[in-house]
Amino acid sequence: MYLTQSLHRRAQGMPDAPFTVSGDRVVSNRDAVDRISRIAGGLKEHGVAGDANVAVLDLNTDFFFLTSAAIAWTDAVIVPVNYRWSVKEIAYSLIDSAVEVMFVGDHHLPLVDDIMTAVPALNKVIHAGVAETPDGLIPLADLLASAPVEDAHRDGTQTLGIFYTGGTTGLPKGVVLSHRSVLTSATAAIAQAGCPRGGTALIAAPAFHMAGFCSWVLSLIQDQGAVPQAEFVPREVLASVEKYGVTQTTWVPTMIQMLVDHPEVGDFDLSSMEMIVYGASPISTALLDRAKAVFPNCRFTQNYGMTELSPTATVLRDEDHAHPEHRKSAGRPLLAVLLKIVDADDNEVPRGIVGEIVVKGDTVMTEYLNKPEETARALAGGWMHTGDSGFLDEDGYVHVVDRIKDMIISGGENVYSIEVEKVVAKYPGVVQCAVIGLPDDKWGERVHAVVQLADGASVTLEELREFCKAEIAGYKAPGSVEVVDAWPLSAAGKILKRELRAQRR
Amino acid sequence: MYLTQSLHRRAQGMPDAPFTVSGDRVVSNRDAVDRISRIAGGLKEHGVAGDANVAVLDLNTDFFFLTSAAIAWTDAVIVPVNYRWSVKEIAYSLIDSAVEVMFVGDHHLPLVDDIMTAVPALNKVIHAGVAETPDGLIPLADLLASAPVEDAHRDGTQTLGIFYTGGTTGLPKGVVLSHRSVLTSATAAIAQAGCPRGGTALIAAPAFHMAGFCSWVLSLIQDQGAVPQAEFVPREVLASVEKYGVTQTTWVPTMIQMLVDHPEVGDFDLSSMEMIVYGASPISTALLDRAKAVFPNCRFTQNYGMTELSPTATVLRDEDHAHPEHRKSAGRPLLAVLLKIVDADDNEVPRGIVGEIVVKGDTVMTEYLNKPEETARALAGGWMHTGDSGFLDEDGYVHVVDRIKDMIISGGENVYSIEVEKVVAKYPGVVQCAVIGLPDDKWGERVHAVVQLADGASVTLEELREFCKAEIAGYKAPGSVEVVDAWPLSAAGKILKRELRAQRR
Repeated sequence: MYLTQSLHRRAQGMPDAPFTVSGDRVVSNRDAVDRISRIAGGLKEHGVAGDANVAVLDLNTDFFFLTSAAIAWTDAVIVPVNYRWSVKEIAYSLIDSAVEVMFVGDHHLPLVDDIMTAVPALNKVIHAGVAETPDGLIPLADLLASAPVEDAHRDGTQTLGIFYTGGTTGLPKGVVLSHRSVLTSATAAIAQAGCPRGGTALIAAPAFHMAGFCSWVLSLIQDQGAVPQAEFVPREVLASVEKYGVTQTTWVPTMIQMLVDHPEVGDFDLSSMEMIVYGASPISTALLDRAKAVFPNCRFTQNYGMTELSPTATVLRDEDHAHPEHRKSAGRPLLAVLLKIVDADDNEVPRGIVGEIVVKGDTVMTEYLNKPEETARALAGGWMHTGDSGFLDEDGYVHVVDRIKDMIISGGENVYSIEVEKVVAKYPGVVQCAVIGLPDDKWGERVHAVVQLADGASVTLEELREFCKAEIAGYKAPGSVEVVDAWPLSAAGKILKRELRAQRR
Repeated sequence: MYLTQSLHRRAQGMPDAPFTVSGDRVVSNRDAVDRISRIAGGLKEHGVAGDANVAVLDLNTDFFFLTSAAIAWTDAVIVPVNYRWSVKEIAYSLIDSAVEVMFVGDHHLPLVDDIMTAVPALNKVIHAGVAETPDGLIPLADLLASAPVEDAHRDGTQTLGIFYTGGTTGLPKGVVLSHRSVLTSATAAIAQAGCPRGGTALIAAPAFHMAGFCSWVLSLIQDQGAVPQAEFVPREVLASVEKYGVTQTTWVPTMIQMLVDHPEVGDFDLSSMEMIVYGASPISTALLDRAKAVFPNCRFTQNYGMTELSPTATVLRDEDHAHPEHRKSAGRPLLAVLLKIVDADDNEVPRGIVGEIVVKGDTVMTEYLNKPEETARALAGGWMHTGDSGFLDEDGYVHVVDRIKDMIISGGENVYSIEVEKVVAKYPGVVQCAVIGLPDDKWGERVHAVVQLADGASVTLEELREFCKAEIAGYKAPGSVEVVDAWPLSAAGKILKRELRAQRR
């Protein structure tokens, strides 16, 4: 199975149905295949070969999906760019993946000069949008004027994309995923959850993330038209659901909370929604009940996973939510994988005992790009080590307990404490610091900085955030700060974060 | 994905739920994995290596499923034996696949001596059943006493099984299918049709056929307990549905017709049935309406395909049956494949035009065993040539029009005309003959022999049938015979079967 396969089936079986709907701009499946095959032809004319990595820097737009599909059609590899990162971080990922050609959408045109300066090898930037194309960039129209080429019809083992995740070491890691991994994960998730076919999908999570990208892949397979939602503005999202008769979407509980709490939620007709896939954390009973009232015809499915697993590892089906214990879990292992809980020596632990969640199967990543040692560590013994701790209950449901790798999930974004700590530590007067996630009504978790200061030094949240945002993305900057003069320490003298968190929850 | 993967998930998540239910004999998932790993250990002790082909000769029984799973667990290849064949035909398939080890169930013990005589290399026959084990055979208990071995955890490209189909040349062909082909087909079919999870599956089609085997694979993936139905006796099938609370099964319309027409159908509680997957032909409106009345809580899905496609090529979902034209079709292409209609030169024909149905994707067979030329012909250009003719309608639904390869489907069994003709031609006094399928209320199609006799010769149906059954399986023997003294001929002097059929319908 491979990404572009669905395009042929859709163009054959439902040529006039929408591939994407963006306001008044509707691209039918027939037109999509025509455009994609021409953009692919244009890429080849620009010298893009089968092993080339081609970046896409865009909000969720119809152009993102057209150009991503064209890259796969050409026989090249998609490198979605995390636009929430700083230019420095983006440049790192583009250099790491040796990108020479990049698509850019309207919204990010202002970044292009800085990125091209920071990435000398990047010599062709194609502007895919409706704004005027700045000098030096190639308009998409040039590629659309090319002769169409045949789909590469890649076999499943070939690379579909390189998806960057924030690294625990502070450096992003490029997760290499094959066509087969991503398509197997999506197909199995649909088989397991019983997702509807047809309808309209709102792609609301950023598509550069595997969560958002997967939500698009699901919609491709499920023969749904895709409505890209450029940014998650609750009122606009509610309006989109009503306007386009959205039947399926992927959100995190934080997003669901924002929608159901919105003062105008009652003004919208949300009855079209049939399936909400959510991830990143379980959903509270209170929130689920509220969401069921707001979306009266909707089923809810939780998918737990990570980019390295393409991304689904477990599925909590709608029916499972009726069981009070199962509802707290992440569901049962995806039918395409094996999952077990192991101790530090990789031995399986008994049921009910907490250990690391490890996964094996066709959905596991190929490697971390250019990081053989980290790859070997993550895939030790042929199992993907998720870095998450959890246990299996009596019925085989997976309960995710804690993150071994110390990651904060804020508003659906992964924030690695160590990366934030490295910046906070540089703040004038900071002697020692620790960054932890604290429960937050709005974001699920908030990035919380605990700092110890030199005599006479001081810190304000506003100044600390400004300081951090010069180095890292805004969503990673602390949302709260606290000064301490002592730390809970382990025998080895390491700050006990677990204790820090426990004292503050 | 591979066959035994589901066993781990089931043993982990639902250890006490049934793997199989046969009357009072229930094998839980936990026990199944224990037994399978021991049988696998026993096979290894008997010298079965990773590339060995191991045959299974049994009706649909729990032993069939245990031993088949054990073969895959061991790292060997399953060769299900078509027990409807004559010993001569069975021997051909066992010699072709170089089988040295075979499992045999109670029902077929009387055949073993003849088979062993005809297949000198077959030196180990393991009796898997409850009857007394005859001298010279190895009781399954011996293998169950072995130390359990670890699952081979085969990667998807390895061979799962060799499934023999009647060849158009009269010689059976061994269709080599990988784990990935079979599991991809099943998973995609579930994703596309929206099949329920959990419950109880009745495995009513013979599991040596890909249709029956696939029905078991579906049940494995869907976490269903499997109830093997040894033979299709309508009253017993109805009783099984009630007794075991069957929720899903795979039947052909002929079988559905026999059930709904059964005089005692009203005596059984059939309300548990949630999903009937049917194949081999579309279902008539009258039969579907009748079936919906008999199975009030049931959805219907048609899967069209062939062994070479593992086996599903198209899926007609329950919702599709509401559309009067779609109901006549075989549905839309399976989401894991590409399907097109081509002319004799393999060029795609326009929509609505009849041509040969060809399919490409992960579900296509590896090869015909020991038949490189037939493999090359069937897979020309990378597409599986189904030998079926059909067309695509405006909505992308596939309509199967005729069988290019001249096959009769009688009671769900494939009968190749040429094979029957070769035998009929040997009947004393037959000058020329043609065998065609004619519509039959009970069997869907009836094998009909048209013969031209020498002066003074005569034929009766009974004598012709007896004559044929000495050479070929009983279901292949003509169900009716007709004497003619002239033929509709093509310009090349070939009997025009299409015309023969048209005159008689």
